[in-house]
Amino acid sequence: MATPGVGMAADIAEQPEVYARLLEPANADPIAAVARAIVAKKPRHVVFTARGTSDHAALYGAYLTEIRLGLPAGLASPSAITVYGARPDLSQALVIGVSQSGGSPDLTEVLSTARQSGALTLAVTNNPASALNEAAELAIDVGAGHERAVAATKTYTAELLALLLLIEATRNGGTLPADEQRAIAALPEQARRTLADDTAARLAPRYRFAARVVTTGRGYAYATAREAALKLMETSYLPALAFSGADLLHGPLALADPDVPVLAVVGNGPGGRAMREVLTRLDERRADVVTIGPDDVPGASARLPVPATDERYAPLLDILPLQTLAKDLAVARGEDPDTPRGLQKVTSTL
Amino acid sequence: MATPGVGMAADIAEQPEVYARLLEPANADPIAAVARAIVAKKPRHVVFTARGTSDHAALYGAYLTEIRLGLPAGLASPSAITVYGARPDLSQALVIGVSQSGGSPDLTEVLSTARQSGALTLAVTNNPASALNEAAELAIDVGAGHERAVAATKTYTAELLALLLLIEATRNGGTLPADEQRAIAALPEQARRTLADDTAARLAPRYRFAARVVTTGRGYAYATAREAALKLMETSYLPALAFSGADLLHGPLALADPDVPVLAVVGNGPGGRAMREVLTRLDERRADVVTIGPDDVPGASARLPVPATDERYAPLLDILPLQTLAKDLAVARGEDPDTPRGLQKVTSTL
Repeated sequence: MATPGVGMAADIAEQPEVYARLLEPANADPIAAVARAIVAKKPRHVVFTARGTSDHAALYGAYLTEIRLGLPAGLASPSAITVYGARPDLSQALVIGVSQSGGSPDLTEVLSTARQSGALTLAVTNNPASALNEAAELAIDVGAGHERAVAATKTYTAELLALLLLIEATRNGGTLPADEQRAIAALPEQARRTLADDTAARLAPRYRFAARVVTTGRGYAYATAREAALKLMETSYLPALAFSGADLLHGPLALADPDVPVLAVVGNGPGGRAMREVLTRLDERRADVVTIGPDDVPGASARLPVPATDERYAPLLDILPLQTLAKDLAVARGEDPDTPRGLQKVTSTL
Repeated sequence: MATPGVGMAADIAEQPEVYARLLEPANADPIAAVARAIVAKKPRHVVFTARGTSDHAALYGAYLTEIRLGLPAGLASPSAITVYGARPDLSQALVIGVSQSGGSPDLTEVLSTARQSGALTLAVTNNPASALNEAAELAIDVGAGHERAVAATKTYTAELLALLLLIEATRNGGTLPADEQRAIAALPEQARRTLADDTAARLAPRYRFAARVVTTGRGYAYATAREAALKLMETSYLPALAFSGADLLHGPLALADPDVPVLAVVGNGPGGRAMREVLTRLDERRADVVTIGPDDVPGASARLPVPATDERYAPLLDILPLQTLAKDLAVARGEDPDTPRGLQKVTSTL
């Protein structure tokens, strides 16, 4: 039997290289071509459809779409179409299916239905030969290569980067502007620095006996909070509750006490500032808070450090120490994060 | 000090009466008038914005919109607008803010911004004098009356019923069709029968020492699963993880084992049938499953019975025993669900 977590560790470590590869012209140019097709079609709104980890990449894409493109964006519930037979008029929409395997029949059905109703359809996958690619008019290959562990890591961040490149190019008429290109070109090296830090590995034992964990963030960082929670559930079977900072104050704050560890993503932009009230309220409830971000936060027990960057790039860095934390915690708990119980790499839901 | 949970019990018991009141012409006619205003404006898509419990009513509204109106529907992330200053073009949208108090500044800002961009805007609240009503062009008063407990129950189901009446009337050009009217008129009595059953009260002690719980459902029932989880978290501080049946198979299934109780909403329509694979997989993992629905499910430990009805009405019944379960469990755990720690009735987030 292989050493527990060795596959997930290799997948995690490969991410700086995956970023660098996706930025090479051979991979970035086809994304710009998709952006030009979107610009030409002028969709009035964007609908994302995805499951699991890819749903969190879609959430990031929805924030980018609203903030950077000024287009309404939403995440579709596939079951309206696949279970109840809804046929919404998507003729003015860009419908984007995000999936590592591209093999989930429900997403394929959503894209086929959308295409029939006149939508521009796009598959973002790590498998150019997939059924989802087949169903869509346009496709982006995130090119993350074979993923060793069942729990997705490098395919998630590759999806984030592909969506970032796509949306910033779309914003600029189909080509990435030079300043954006420079900022994004820094990400592989920033990812390397983030992964070189050993804080996550040192903190993992702290959660060995935790009975639950809360993750939180606002704006772009909410996608990171959701994905971190899923990673902890998949690999350590630890109940992890993800809340937007605002939703946390609408009810679930009652959960917080000194025995409930909180992982809070706190950037140095508007989303991070909006987290301040949340952190104050958590402090009042004497919650144990560890932050993820570039700056120390008063009252927090510790911080998983990431380089300072614009909040719209931060999801590509913030998740990295959280992936390591999930992996090391699973191993500390005697589990093998490479092969979580009850899971398969490709999940087929109807 | 008042008896713990007496306020929440009174709120729960009042729901059949709240339904009946909302169906009276004095309250239903203004909803039909809003439906006619929507029909006249012909929106191309619908955006919901809400927080906490009301977000689950909005989720139900989004399913109804897609399935019954054939319009794309999504839940907006207020922070894109309120934190990052996004100004999406909502000129073809109907934007619906759902809020018990109508007092959350972020929702008001989303509605104001949407209205400025040309959207048709609607406030659905339990407070006609609220800031959200002020900001919106149209308003619906769900008329649930004063809610005694902090944890919302009757305002939630009143929001569900108001959205159902609105969307079915919109579907029919602005008036509720006779067959729909007949089916909906049965709901107060069906709610009374559901609440008269004592299974939820008898089952509550079973979860006295549970460390976590998973709730699940598909389609319309997913809103119920989400709301049940929030109720359990708010009142018993029990970590409750809500998943759509499909998403559960994409990762979180690894959590399931004989020590993790599962509450599964299983109707007798397409959503319930789509849950069968989920129940089989849960059974393989030897999870303890209690279902909510009209029919027994093989392998389940128990069932919270509700009258058989079309799945699009079921959310108005399925949540009732789950509210009772949350209340009784909180009391069994020595908590007072009327005044959960750290929460206020009106939550202001920016």
